[in-house]
Amino acid sequence: MLKKKYAGILQELMVKNNIDALIIGPSDDLYYLTGFNVHVCERFQALFFLADGNYFHISPQMYLEEAEKNLGSKTDILVWADSESFLDAINKANQKYQLAGKRIAINSAIRGIDLIDIMDELPAKYVNGHEVLELLRIKKDQSEVEKLQQAARWADEVAEKIIDYISPGMTEKDVKEKIEELFAEKGAGLAFTPIVASGPNSSMPHYCDDSRVIQEQDIIIMDFGCQYEGYNSDTTRTVFVGEATEEQKKVYDIVLKANRAAEAKVRVGVSAEEVDKAAREVISREGYGEFFLTRTGHGIGISVHEAPYIRTGNKQILEEGMAFSIEPGIYLKDNFGVRIEDIVVVGAREANILNKSSKEIIIIK
Amino acid sequence: MLKKKYAGILQELMVKNNIDALIIGPSDDLYYLTGFNVHVCERFQALFFLADGNYFHISPQMYLEEAEKNLGSKTDILVWADSESFLDAINKANQKYQLAGKRIAINSAIRGIDLIDIMDELPAKYVNGHEVLELLRIKKDQSEVEKLQQAARWADEVAEKIIDYISPGMTEKDVKEKIEELFAEKGAGLAFTPIVASGPNSSMPHYCDDSRVIQEQDIIIMDFGCQYEGYNSDTTRTVFVGEATEEQKKVYDIVLKANRAAEAKVRVGVSAEEVDKAAREVISREGYGEFFLTRTGHGIGISVHEAPYIRTGNKQILEEGMAFSIEPGIYLKDNFGVRIEDIVVVGAREANILNKSSKEIIIIK
Repeated sequence: MLKKKYAGILQELMVKNNIDALIIGPSDDLYYLTGFNVHVCERFQALFFLADGNYFHISPQMYLEEAEKNLGSKTDILVWADSESFLDAINKANQKYQLAGKRIAINSAIRGIDLIDIMDELPAKYVNGHEVLELLRIKKDQSEVEKLQQAARWADEVAEKIIDYISPGMTEKDVKEKIEELFAEKGAGLAFTPIVASGPNSSMPHYCDDSRVIQEQDIIIMDFGCQYEGYNSDTTRTVFVGEATEEQKKVYDIVLKANRAAEAKVRVGVSAEEVDKAAREVISREGYGEFFLTRTGHGIGISVHEAPYIRTGNKQILEEGMAFSIEPGIYLKDNFGVRIEDIVVVGAREANILNKSSKEIIIIK
Repeated sequence: MLKKKYAGILQELMVKNNIDALIIGPSDDLYYLTGFNVHVCERFQALFFLADGNYFHISPQMYLEEAEKNLGSKTDILVWADSESFLDAINKANQKYQLAGKRIAINSAIRGIDLIDIMDELPAKYVNGHEVLELLRIKKDQSEVEKLQQAARWADEVAEKIIDYISPGMTEKDVKEKIEELFAEKGAGLAFTPIVASGPNSSMPHYCDDSRVIQEQDIIIMDFGCQYEGYNSDTTRTVFVGEATEEQKKVYDIVLKANRAAEAKVRVGVSAEEVDKAAREVISREGYGEFFLTRTGHGIGISVHEAPYIRTGNKQILEEGMAFSIEPGIYLKDNFGVRIEDIVVVGAREANILNKSSKEIIIIK
């Protein structure tokens, strides 16, 4: 069922942004608006939301029963069978709702190949609707913050427990699976596949292999998170096995200072890029600027990555309840990397830092 | 590294289909062509393959190290940082490779919102390149068939073992997790999240919840598969708990006849729609035609769903080595459903039916 509270806000956003219709494919956007957690496959399905408040759904025939159950019997559902093309349903929709020539925005879940086919069938002005949809959920209310807090708490508990588990001779995969097991014990689903990057692999921010054997004097980046009632956590800690070199200690210290500087900058009225700059300045001042390969952070909620993005050039002014990661890092190719990541929520005077697990340097003996 | 064997075929397909450039986002297509298994996130990355055989890659800065390792040091990689837009890299690519005004095809992994932004930045004729890319891998060679066979064998073993596990009182989730565990014991990754649909849930072909408690006299559809060296299996068996009603037995028998009729139809020279028709005729003749909600099958390989699609209207002539599912079903809303699915490979005279687990009616006592 379309949630009326959000539908009203969405309508306002559409009018303000001159959007006549919004096509929302299977995604967190759709889930947020309707609670409908669609089975994703190659068959086109989407909710069409119109600026006048009307909406309808296009569904493959085989998903009709789920669509009816989730969207309610009052929702107009236009069905297409496997023996037809989804463009038949697009045509029916156009006849019924007069979409041709309108300004139609799409969300991030509409595939480019489907958009090309739709454009051929239904001439209109198509625009990128991603930012508008992200605005809809950029500020978290108290109940959402509590869910993010619980998800963060669980991640912190895993961050502390995993330290006792790691020892040289096990693979990155062993550590990854242990993290998954620790979350499973809590009944928590994963926010994403954990990243465990050891030794030289730690210089790749989103390293996704896991076969390396952990060795004495390795550095290990662990990046993981879970879900609590649909809301995600995402935290990174970097630890050392046996000992850390002077250079590693120095780099760790710089990244930690950058993490703290950015977190200290967060409050209502500051811009996203100012927070990014606070971290970047610390790292640049120490001569490692070119090795800070990423933005400082990303928003988080029912999506692991959503607005606001904490990066150079983003002039978005922070408001109370915005939630995002602070995750500066230094990545030295073929050598090592360090990243320290917390989730924070914007408050009037300061950030509410959701992650509480230790950020002091940890050397596993 | 781009695999030369496939690059040559792809070039031929592009010339034949009048395509100047192909944009291939993170996907099975990219993996098949290069072996590069990219970490997917919201940052744009894609391989651009040109009809003259040239190619280059656009990569976010943070993934540069992986891109270099996987694509080789000779590949031209155009990088964009989080402080920039990916359109900066698109512009550089256009200056270097003159893409404006060309006929550019995209694969299924390019998001519609990114395509809209690219269209604004780089005027050209954009077309749907999905079918061309699917043709590249539609026929499996002997080594690929062996991998599909091994994946199918594992799925068969799970199909036989899971029968002994099921009993009333457990949830669908329990059964799903047991299936996952049985695959994990073999060291096999999942092809997709198993579907376990009990009682009235079985009338939804791709039911994806799992909280219902299994009861005496339930019908249960189980649909699952695994991966072997990148190749997938996908099989469905429908079983009964305690006993089956006369209607259920009748429907089971019809679906099994449809499954066998379609499998008997498969050989070189027959069209995809004729195979679909063979199953559909059996079910329609018995008066259940309107409850066969899906196509008869889908191709399978490194993707779980790929060409050829076994559906009404698909005139694709079957050739030796094409592999696909045969999965007719009858879905009676608020009552029950039955589906029986095997993977088959097209041979000169008959189908090689990869799944061997029993299709006789199974009543769990």
